[in-house]
Amino acid sequence: MFETAFTIEWGDCDEAGIVFYPNYFYWFDCTWQRWLRSHGLSQRELKRRFGSVTPLVKVGAQFMGPARYDDELTIRAEVAEWQERRFRIDYKLSVRNVQIASGFEQRAWAAVTDMGELRGASVPQEFKDMLR
Amino acid sequence: MFETAFTIEWGDCDEAGIVFYPNYFYWFDCTWQRWLRSHGLSQRELKRRFGSVTPLVKVGAQFMGPARYDDELTIRAEVAEWQERRFRIDYKLSVRNVQIASGFEQRAWAAVTDMGELRGASVPQEFKDMLR
Amino acid sequence: MFETAFTIEWGDCDEAGIVFYPNYFYWFDCTWQRWLRSHGLSQRELKRRFGSVTPLVKVGAQFMGPARYDDELTIRAEVAEWQERRFRIDYKLSVRNVQIASGFEQRAWAAVTDMGELRGASVPQEFKDMLR
Amino acid sequence: MFETAFTIEWGDCDEAGIVFYPNYFYWFDCTWQRWLRSHGLSQRELKRRFGSVTPLVKVGAQFMGPARYDDELTIRAEVAEWQERRFRIDYKLSVRNVQIASGFEQRAWAAVTDMGELRGASVPQEFKDMLR
Repeated sequence: MFETAFTIEWGDCDEAGIVFYPNYFYWFDCTWQRWLRSHGLSQRELKRRFGSVTPLVKVGAQFMGPARYDDELTIRAEVAEWQERRFRIDYKLSVRNVQIASGFEQRAWAAVTDMGELRGASVPQEFKDMLR
Repeated sequence: MFETAFTIEWGDCDEAGIVFYPNYFYWFDCTWQRWLRSHGLSQRELKRRFGSVTPLVKVGAQFMGPARYDDELTIRAEVAEWQERRFRIDYKLSVRNVQIASGFEQRAWAAVTDMGELRGASVPQEFKDMLR
Repeated sequence: MFETAFTIEWGDCDEAGIVFYPNYFYWFDCTWQRWLRSHGLSQRELKRRFGSVTPLVKVGAQFMGPARYDDELTIRAEVAEWQERRFRIDYKLSVRNVQIASGFEQRAWAAVTDMGELRGASVPQEFKDMLR
Repeated sequence: MFETAFTIEWGDCDEAGIVFYPNYFYWFDCTWQRWLRSHGLSQRELKRRFGSVTPLVKVGAQFMGPARYDDELTIRAEVAEWQERRFRIDYKLSVRNVQIASGFEQRAWAAVTDMGELRGASVPQEFKDMLR
């Protein structure tokens, strides 16, 4: 489980004064990167240490209520499912302790071959243990 | 059915040289707006003509292959499901006639009250007819 | 004088692995908003308290070196010039104590009329005192 | 001289209903890329053909009036100054034939060394001739 927060900026909102929704996925990605970072990892470090990257397979979000400029957005992330070669991160988003949205990212574990190509591979136990 | 195209710009790609995925949702939204525009509509016109807006309820995407800088991204949209107060737009994304991703936006039909609040309402037949 | 920091995210960088430059202006804007916030202000509060907004007149930036994914970007802001109806905020950007860029935003002080139009007006002394 | 146009999208505007200004720089960059493309060039092709890239040195913009959602933004670009190792592209932005902003990008001509480093170099005559 990992939790982080973002201040919603002026430029993140559309003319209706609410968050322009693609930004939520930007924050999902940021949350994932911050989570990795909290374990001394990063996209580059994953590649160096495990020879692997975590490309996206499927993503989604559901919106329950709007978030606005100056709101503090709290995002809570957890890995909700481990498969052999994939895992799904679930995100819960709240503003002032009210949930406003949820979402997920399903990512694959992909080894980078010598040719620079990606090949699906088993998620290492060491990595799983870190994110529990 | 509606089809449109975007050139993938340098700034749309991440360090891995592939589209940073939240941008796909920006293009979904653009496609939806262009489709409305092709019928003389827009967010503002919808509000003026129908007193309504189309807030997002649920969105998602699946990625089959990467798209890169300079690629021409073709997006084909169609309303795949009409419910009483909601509808779902399906998007198919391709580059050089190869499908690279798919996605959807489920939108509600919401009347704007005199107080400026949103209230779910039945999708007007006139609107449905337009997008068939 | 005001100082704040941002972590450069994966999605902020282009294929060359360096920050896609329009993002620097996004961070200028965020810095300005955070500065206002540190004084209990915001775009909305400015409007409520002073009946005014601060539209942009002119902006610019100079780049000395690249910034990359995972870098912590420190931005230092100060009002470098007060004119009767305008003011200029200067930004200094650094990564690991090395300056990588500088920039500025020249903003006007504009009163919002009853008709919702903007009219240039003198910057209030109270506002100037706050940002010194 | 090169001219191109963009439709201003819903997501490009802020809560005030006008373009969030960092997007103008995104469009400057897009215009530059489209101009290169109109000559069969691109960032990648420049590197392959000339062994060079065109990093930004300095950028700026001035705003005369707002642009809004659904407006068609026309951008006219021209190289306004050739220096030995740099050049400046000037942009004029208009909506319905009224100029709303102007801007510039000063870019360096930089050869990519075998080590992947950048070294300032003279702008090739062939490249200059193309953009006249």
